[in-house]
Amino acid sequence: MNEVRPKTRAYQGYHRREIPREDERLTHTGPDTPMGELMRRYWQPVCLSAQLADLPLALHIMGEELVAFRDGGGRVGVLHRHCTHRGASLEFGRIAERGIRCCYHGWHFDVDGTVIDTPGEPPGSSIKHNACQGAYPAREAHGLVFAYMGPPDAVPDFPDYDTFHLPGVELVPYSIRHDCNWLQVHENLMDPLHAVFLHSRMGAIQLTEAWGEMPVTEWLEIGDRVCYVASRRIGGNVWVRFNEVATPNFGQVGGFWEDGLAETFFQRVGATRWTVPNDDRTSTIFGLRHFSDALEAKGIGNKALVGVESLDIYGQTGHRPYAEMQRNTGDWEAEVSQRPIAIHALEHRGTTDRGVVLLRNHLLRALAAPPAPPSAVGGIVPTYTSNTVVGIPAAPGADDRALLRAVGRKVADIVAGGNGLDPRERPAIIATRLAALRGMQLEAGEAP
Amino acid sequence: MNEVRPKTRAYQGYHRREIPREDERLTHTGPDTPMGELMRRYWQPVCLSAQLADLPLALHIMGEELVAFRDGGGRVGVLHRHCTHRGASLEFGRIAERGIRCCYHGWHFDVDGTVIDTPGEPPGSSIKHNACQGAYPAREAHGLVFAYMGPPDAVPDFPDYDTFHLPGVELVPYSIRHDCNWLQVHENLMDPLHAVFLHSRMGAIQLTEAWGEMPVTEWLEIGDRVCYVASRRIGGNVWVRFNEVATPNFGQVGGFWEDGLAETFFQRVGATRWTVPNDDRTSTIFGLRHFSDALEAKGIGNKALVGVESLDIYGQTGHRPYAEMQRNTGDWEAEVSQRPIAIHALEHRGTTDRGVVLLRNHLLRALAAPPAPPSAVGGIVPTYTSNTVVGIPAAPGADDRALLRAVGRKVADIVAGGNGLDPRERPAIIATRLAALRGMQLEAGEAP
Amino acid sequence: MNEVRPKTRAYQGYHRREIPREDERLTHTGPDTPMGELMRRYWQPVCLSAQLADLPLALHIMGEELVAFRDGGGRVGVLHRHCTHRGASLEFGRIAERGIRCCYHGWHFDVDGTVIDTPGEPPGSSIKHNACQGAYPAREAHGLVFAYMGPPDAVPDFPDYDTFHLPGVELVPYSIRHDCNWLQVHENLMDPLHAVFLHSRMGAIQLTEAWGEMPVTEWLEIGDRVCYVASRRIGGNVWVRFNEVATPNFGQVGGFWEDGLAETFFQRVGATRWTVPNDDRTSTIFGLRHFSDALEAKGIGNKALVGVESLDIYGQTGHRPYAEMQRNTGDWEAEVSQRPIAIHALEHRGTTDRGVVLLRNHLLRALAAPPAPPSAVGGIVPTYTSNTVVGIPAAPGADDRALLRAVGRKVADIVAGGNGLDPRERPAIIATRLAALRGMQLEAGEAP
Repeated sequence: MNEVRPKTRAYQGYHRREIPREDERLTHTGPDTPMGELMRRYWQPVCLSAQLADLPLALHIMGEELVAFRDGGGRVGVLHRHCTHRGASLEFGRIAERGIRCCYHGWHFDVDGTVIDTPGEPPGSSIKHNACQGAYPAREAHGLVFAYMGPPDAVPDFPDYDTFHLPGVELVPYSIRHDCNWLQVHENLMDPLHAVFLHSRMGAIQLTEAWGEMPVTEWLEIGDRVCYVASRRIGGNVWVRFNEVATPNFGQVGGFWEDGLAETFFQRVGATRWTVPNDDRTSTIFGLRHFSDALEAKGIGNKALVGVESLDIYGQTGHRPYAEMQRNTGDWEAEVSQRPIAIHALEHRGTTDRGVVLLRNHLLRALAAPPAPPSAVGGIVPTYTSNTVVGIPAAPGADDRALLRAVGRKVADIVAGGNGLDPRERPAIIATRLAALRGMQLEAGEAP
Repeated sequence: MNEVRPKTRAYQGYHRREIPREDERLTHTGPDTPMGELMRRYWQPVCLSAQLADLPLALHIMGEELVAFRDGGGRVGVLHRHCTHRGASLEFGRIAERGIRCCYHGWHFDVDGTVIDTPGEPPGSSIKHNACQGAYPAREAHGLVFAYMGPPDAVPDFPDYDTFHLPGVELVPYSIRHDCNWLQVHENLMDPLHAVFLHSRMGAIQLTEAWGEMPVTEWLEIGDRVCYVASRRIGGNVWVRFNEVATPNFGQVGGFWEDGLAETFFQRVGATRWTVPNDDRTSTIFGLRHFSDALEAKGIGNKALVGVESLDIYGQTGHRPYAEMQRNTGDWEAEVSQRPIAIHALEHRGTTDRGVVLLRNHLLRALAAPPAPPSAVGGIVPTYTSNTVVGIPAAPGADDRALLRAVGRKVADIVAGGNGLDPRERPAIIATRLAALRGMQLEAGEAP
Repeated sequence: MNEVRPKTRAYQGYHRREIPREDERLTHTGPDTPMGELMRRYWQPVCLSAQLADLPLALHIMGEELVAFRDGGGRVGVLHRHCTHRGASLEFGRIAERGIRCCYHGWHFDVDGTVIDTPGEPPGSSIKHNACQGAYPAREAHGLVFAYMGPPDAVPDFPDYDTFHLPGVELVPYSIRHDCNWLQVHENLMDPLHAVFLHSRMGAIQLTEAWGEMPVTEWLEIGDRVCYVASRRIGGNVWVRFNEVATPNFGQVGGFWEDGLAETFFQRVGATRWTVPNDDRTSTIFGLRHFSDALEAKGIGNKALVGVESLDIYGQTGHRPYAEMQRNTGDWEAEVSQRPIAIHALEHRGTTDRGVVLLRNHLLRALAAPPAPPSAVGGIVPTYTSNTVVGIPAAPGADDRALLRAVGRKVADIVAGGNGLDPRERPAIIATRLAALRGMQLEAGEAP
């Protein structure tokens, strides 16, 4: 423990109490804000499919009041909440065979916002042709409802990620509200070091013991993606964890229960998620928990706990007693307690925060020029998130940190180098290439 | 169902998300606002008489903090809430035989705000002559407490409406808080079309089946009044419903349980009400429910349910589970859900909204020049609100909507034409004139 | 009862409804406000020692978000709440043998805010020398935790008041949150007249009957202190109560249960307290209740009721039903109900309010030039707060109010005249001098 304590660092509260403003460019997402307009260029999840049953659902997304529903024909509508006629909320509307009717005067809207009927108006009335209900294109995928809230002439493709199509993987949707700005929730994904402390060393083991090992970490940008590659020594194995986020608020997290004890190659995702602003001080993670026999071999995960405001991983929601949050703090508290909107100007970022810095810079560049959408092969967008555990013992007397770094780089090259492959063959090819790293040693002159 | 859906009306949420400001002229009622000053020119109800028992009552009216109480002598005081001495709230004061004492230092105020005693001050102190507690004239009528909050040299007459004096009618006071601006609550009274949908066709029948018939409606201004006349075909009868509001926030509603099956002539009011702003985002209906054997012949009404935050009519309060509000939506949700303050600039008003438009224009003119107070006959102000059901079968092959319109106009002429009659004789005279409409037919050339 | 009611004082609510702004100079205490900076020149209590057990405690003091804790070595830390690394709240930190660790990345801070360790950073990192956690000097006394939140180069002595060292006196700490500005809570201490009304004549006797007697009161400034001397006639005795406040927010209150029936001389303090702003609309009294056989001879006080949000004196907290607050109003309601921040410009202050005026002026002068700290004798600061009851019958036919005033002045001279005495001897010397007042009479020509 280094206890250098220069006199000038002690009791400086009085001189450090000023609180600058938040970085509005990255954190504000209302209409006509730079980040809000960037986010609106992408399909965003807004609720779970299961929430759209017999009653409309009031939503608050990026500062806009909306209502979602599934009509009698199974179509999903995402409309402005207040009726274009006189403003009554469509959360009190009647779902119709086609679209929805306002409770107040029965105005009838299709899921695209066109006015089907204004029953109180005279037969020849043209008002229905001159009015429409604000609406956004909506679609469902994997149990989530997505809306596109951007300019209607620029609807993007819906990205069909490879991890949605892996054989034997079941996707279970969930959502978790956070009482803080979206960015501090999202950027946790590019911060692998917090797992060593928050999830491991600061109290109870929240995942597995392996997470408590200090990794050698590198961060990289690949197209619209920011990634980290964290390599850990676990006995005679090296565990390389590869996580990614995509512009602007998408992310994937590797399997949660990895312990590094058994070899595995390109073991895919534990959760896919989008961190969606409700307003600038509230956000919701919409996610897909991935379940498969391989991912859940240890029998820890629990599908029954995955849903609205619930996840089978410790500390992900705000629904625990305050004293338990204090004793065994989870991601939710660590993120939310950074103030309603974290103040970047007050941070003292170190080497552990390189991913956070990289992500913010990536987003700032995207505000000026959004990155090209990822290229798909056969319609499928390749992703990288994965755990790999490979038998590579430490060399006696050698610098094992340098070896870990070298292994991580090799894994990164292999995983990111298979983008052009047929998505049906890519996992096996990458796994084979990764297996070839077994017993790898640091070559002379190969300095990290 | 007309399904014209021009391409340009679909998915236009992005281009319609801007939210203009509310119309402050009509909706803001704090001190020194145009509408606030207009409202202060009239006696306004502030609580129920029954709420003034042994303890003072804290009130919030048009943005002002007040306290009301009834002293030992039975006089009602409506005072500024904070003691003029040091600001302690008089809601913690001690009601005296005359007036009220502040809890803190015992300053003693009469119901008119004059200082009766400052017991901690020396005997010769003149402070009591230099101070006073802000007070407003108050009076009780029919179980409601009214205050006059305008300039003290312009106290208006207390309007004594004819419907307060009908033989066999019992008036039962009530109050219902609404979490929204006053105007969107009030203007519902000039919107008879919502009854067809909200109260009838959109779900459960909330009143009687007859309300679900589409009326032929006309709106008219008579002096300080805005009125609607809604005529419905019910078998061989025509039911003409005549409702009124008076400047600025008074209104009367006809009997609730009319089914149009039996003839009735000039059947009077179901409820008299004032919609009083608490502040710009909260308002309270203070009302009088009218009970009589004739009005309640069907045995549906229930006096025991009428009081503070309670009424014997479905959907009038916010005290139901949210899911029930969604399934069977009432006036309260339809009004409150138009945003805390409805945004007129976003509305698409049609022919059904003529009454709302007329009412707003009437109020805007009243801001510039308040209408003359209604002329009274023998101190009694005539009002129009009534149900009339008269046997007028549809003529085979003729335009029944035109007949309904003609009947409505005749009824309006008769009802509004009896203002100069002795109030004790007026109801019977009007009823007789209305009965003469039996069997009326549309004359040739009488186009609506 | 004087019922002069000039016409112009009746029903003047309309002309008196304007609400000016609060006096920001005295009431605002955030960083960089005049009063906030004055308060920060003094040690301020922030919590009870007993609240610092195994978990950190989130605090809000003068608008600053803080966290307090006691480390494994028993040292108390008062730090800025948000970690200087990435902003996670230290209320979720792990208390260490020395200092505290942030939950998120394990940054380790000493109680003075210096960075002991940044475990995720590489061994050679210099970040720990360039960062520090905002911290304030803290100390504990008598069960309260005090922090110094002012400029670090101007830490004042911790005032060691004589009343902390009286033999046989036990000090029991407590705290009570008030939903209003600090000043209206504090200035109640210089307002002895409210006791006659609020605590006695307005309802139940909250202390003893003697408090209901109208005192002859004088107010005086002594150095950093503002005091009142209130003299009451109780049969053949005169009860002289001497209370004090010190700049800026310290105060002492004499014993609570005095009834004036038995002689007592320089009987000391019932409670010592500081009124600390949480923000401008919330404040907390941190206090020490004094218990001794002499003070509690009547067996009314109850140590078991003294603690966080609890005191053994009626009406001091907000934790009673509203109707009980209305029927038997206590200090808490009288203070809090003066609006979130009392508006001095609306007050009508009389002779009873001289102490409040004196206190405010004293504070305004202190904003310009803080008073010199009190001189201590042997490190002990003398204070004055005390009850004295001395046998001085009223002279038949004479002006007893003049006699009470003369007695009060003599008592004040004696109590305030012993500052230079050895604190161990001072109480007995003052008591002896006071006892010599027995049978005192008003001399000819001694006009008050």
